[in-house]
Amino acid sequence: MALGRSLLRLLKTHGTLSLQQTRTQSVAVIGAPFSKGQKRRGVEHGPKFIRNAGLLERLSNLDYPVHDLGDLQFQHPEKDEACMQVNFPRTVGRANQLLAKAVSGAVGAGHTCVMLGGDHSLAIGSVEGHSRQCPDLGLIWVDAHTDVNTPMTSPSGNLHGQAVAFMLKELQDKMPDLPGFSWMKPFLSSRDLVYIGLRDVDPGEHYILKTLGIQYFSMRDIDRLGIQRVMEETLDHLLGSNQRPLHLSFDIDAFDPSLAPATGTPVIGGLTYREGIYIAEEIHNTGLLSAMDLVEVNPILGASRAAMEATAALAVDVIASSLGQTREGSHVRLDEIPSAKEDTEQLRL
Amino acid sequence: MALGRSLLRLLKTHGTLSLQQTRTQSVAVIGAPFSKGQKRRGVEHGPKFIRNAGLLERLSNLDYPVHDLGDLQFQHPEKDEACMQVNFPRTVGRANQLLAKAVSGAVGAGHTCVMLGGDHSLAIGSVEGHSRQCPDLGLIWVDAHTDVNTPMTSPSGNLHGQAVAFMLKELQDKMPDLPGFSWMKPFLSSRDLVYIGLRDVDPGEHYILKTLGIQYFSMRDIDRLGIQRVMEETLDHLLGSNQRPLHLSFDIDAFDPSLAPATGTPVIGGLTYREGIYIAEEIHNTGLLSAMDLVEVNPILGASRAAMEATAALAVDVIASSLGQTREGSHVRLDEIPSAKEDTEQLRL
Amino acid sequence: MALGRSLLRLLKTHGTLSLQQTRTQSVAVIGAPFSKGQKRRGVEHGPKFIRNAGLLERLSNLDYPVHDLGDLQFQHPEKDEACMQVNFPRTVGRANQLLAKAVSGAVGAGHTCVMLGGDHSLAIGSVEGHSRQCPDLGLIWVDAHTDVNTPMTSPSGNLHGQAVAFMLKELQDKMPDLPGFSWMKPFLSSRDLVYIGLRDVDPGEHYILKTLGIQYFSMRDIDRLGIQRVMEETLDHLLGSNQRPLHLSFDIDAFDPSLAPATGTPVIGGLTYREGIYIAEEIHNTGLLSAMDLVEVNPILGASRAAMEATAALAVDVIASSLGQTREGSHVRLDEIPSAKEDTEQLRL
Repeated sequence: MALGRSLLRLLKTHGTLSLQQTRTQSVAVIGAPFSKGQKRRGVEHGPKFIRNAGLLERLSNLDYPVHDLGDLQFQHPEKDEACMQVNFPRTVGRANQLLAKAVSGAVGAGHTCVMLGGDHSLAIGSVEGHSRQCPDLGLIWVDAHTDVNTPMTSPSGNLHGQAVAFMLKELQDKMPDLPGFSWMKPFLSSRDLVYIGLRDVDPGEHYILKTLGIQYFSMRDIDRLGIQRVMEETLDHLLGSNQRPLHLSFDIDAFDPSLAPATGTPVIGGLTYREGIYIAEEIHNTGLLSAMDLVEVNPILGASRAAMEATAALAVDVIASSLGQTREGSHVRLDEIPSAKEDTEQLRL
Repeated sequence: MALGRSLLRLLKTHGTLSLQQTRTQSVAVIGAPFSKGQKRRGVEHGPKFIRNAGLLERLSNLDYPVHDLGDLQFQHPEKDEACMQVNFPRTVGRANQLLAKAVSGAVGAGHTCVMLGGDHSLAIGSVEGHSRQCPDLGLIWVDAHTDVNTPMTSPSGNLHGQAVAFMLKELQDKMPDLPGFSWMKPFLSSRDLVYIGLRDVDPGEHYILKTLGIQYFSMRDIDRLGIQRVMEETLDHLLGSNQRPLHLSFDIDAFDPSLAPATGTPVIGGLTYREGIYIAEEIHNTGLLSAMDLVEVNPILGASRAAMEATAALAVDVIASSLGQTREGSHVRLDEIPSAKEDTEQLRL
Repeated sequence: MALGRSLLRLLKTHGTLSLQQTRTQSVAVIGAPFSKGQKRRGVEHGPKFIRNAGLLERLSNLDYPVHDLGDLQFQHPEKDEACMQVNFPRTVGRANQLLAKAVSGAVGAGHTCVMLGGDHSLAIGSVEGHSRQCPDLGLIWVDAHTDVNTPMTSPSGNLHGQAVAFMLKELQDKMPDLPGFSWMKPFLSSRDLVYIGLRDVDPGEHYILKTLGIQYFSMRDIDRLGIQRVMEETLDHLLGSNQRPLHLSFDIDAFDPSLAPATGTPVIGGLTYREGIYIAEEIHNTGLLSAMDLVEVNPILGASRAAMEATAALAVDVIASSLGQTREGSHVRLDEIPSAKEDTEQLRL
């Protein structure tokens, strides 16, 4: 079986298999309008703006059923004092508990789950919920940041910069018991995680990266190796020994701020449009994408309406490419060139 | 002879031969102010704006004679009803008939012919006219689009999206007899064509690409291989077995819209400036460029005067680089460093 | 010893050695508010704007002492008539004499010297001063231009386009005796120089490049080889046979004008942000950077305040990356992850 899937991936990578065989069967979209993993207003409008940029129309071109499960309704406790310098622990914890249940349900029902954030603290619930159905998942985190601070190393106290620390088994004894998080425990090994796009890493995070030996590709690594080889090494790392479901957690700030200005913590020197789409295409081509997050689109932070719309359009392109949209086109519903000699009405597509 | 030219290309590629040996002998510029291959006004002003951006001054730096043959005067029939959903068939057909004659004349007179569009439907006449003089030509089509719809597969009915279908022998029995096109018949084999820059391909076009086995490099392929290897494979495909004249048909929308905003059908994720120039330089370095098109500069579509001027300047750079302008400079008219010890007036360049 | 340093570079390149071992020991910053190597006002404000963009704060994060030696006070002779069509020879000559002394002093005191220009004619004094302490230095010139015209080949007569010609021993008999330059003589062999980023080279300069066999990487070469291999070949050329101190002379116009608009002679098709930073990182990683220039930031030439600030911020990033700032982060002051089980106040970083 392992050999069979490995061969399948090889064939797909080399374009020998047709689109039909790598296609996702059905997709569920879950909106998560939530912003309490950080302090800037606006990122809770992400799901609405990504939908308005034409997400569902675009996915409908891909020829499989898409189920829009709407937006989750998050409760905001009246009082949520900081605990151990962590901001909004109860609000973030409970939102993720709700999200985890929704993602687990969607994946359990056989859908590839697309979570629209909201801030990146939502990955805690999204990946945890996914892991309930797929405990052997591999996680690809595309981001300018590692988001792996613990409450003790975080300079800001914002949970969107700590999401990965909640997941990693190796950090269990470094994590305090925070109110709002009793429903979960760490579930991911550090060897099952790969970062792509890093360029703003705090000292505590760098120590964790190095100490745990986490596989990562900073922007410098992408400059050095090229995106083609980065994806090859990423997929070899996660899928080399055996196949498994993949979770893609994509922070829009992985892109260069010139492309994705409407986000809360932009960092110069990011991915080009083409690198971001290539990452998504390569993940689709594995045939193993099981759930994904698209987070940190903050429509009120663009300097202009055009900036905001460009950022949301970029989010749509990443999601569609992760689910099978290709730049060279496709002809899944066509099996001949209409002839000019017959009646044209009948042959017109 | 084949060996001789192959060796010549090898030497040129490795920079062993001097500029003089690869230089074009003379150039003819033909303006084609025409827009009826599509529905947006403005692209007929392309030739004027490309000239205003300094085309002729730039080419005059390249040290060979440049003949500006002026703009063609196209007739627009009073009545030109759509036929088989194709828009303006008579207007486009007759314009291309006129252009074909002009290009054939220029190439026949020994010039490298530069056609300034106008929309990309003009390639029908430009390549056909070139092929009258050089029936063994190879065609390099640099574009976001394949422009290979037949009248039956075209979603829009615009002829600028069907130009290549008129050329290909393999599509002959899929093409209806359209008014305005009785002067020509298909003249190109699909193996003599290479696409570069694709990222917006219709389903019927994708079917044709795959069925005819046309060599193409989508933006994903450029991301995967790099532009250096793409050009190597392009030239190997067209020039591997024997040398032949080359036709470069360059649609300005191959570039990313951030660089070439003033065009009718921009598509995100295009060529960088440097990739576009590299393509042009590599084609020049073969010493085999015999005719080229620069099309789809539409000066009224830029959001600002700066956007329009940037697009026209880009067109000038592509043409000049295709004809020998180099980024590392050259010193064709110099054969020593003037000495400081002698009279300076006399030695000053 | 040579073997030892070569091994050191190998280990550093492969990331085997920790940051501490490659770190610069101390830095001296010298401002050179000077503009008479060319004719546009404003570049004399470069040092102020680069400092205002946060240079010293950024360097202070790098964990070694930084000494800001302030700005040099240049004398401007009342009369300075052009000589052999060279503009402001006395002013430029004396400014560089002063700068050479300052740089020599800083390097002699054990600092890595950072010179903030000002125009690129200042490299004459900066590299000459550096060479007094390190006669075996290797020079890496990152620039859109070669700046190697002699007074006889220069089209403009501006000294910022002739700086390298004053340094090269091989051009000694091509250089006239200019007033203001009697304090110096050529000190650099052409084999000890590498250019990166060229795309606007005058005919006389191209002749010199080719005749002297100077190693250079034009933008075309970067497109062809990739920046990773360009840096590998650059460092092999300068450090292959034996280790030596390096001088980095970085003209901000090496970057694409979209990134560095506030400069006097912008040329389209330049370095990306990531390529520029990669160059700086690779030079830092040799552990051999001994002095650097950052020149041609002209704050009054940006089209907007944002354009000016972006250019100055870019200058800061190049300097910081040359001195050890890394995109993947670092944890030099950290040796464990704080535990959640102990008192948090005590452990907080």
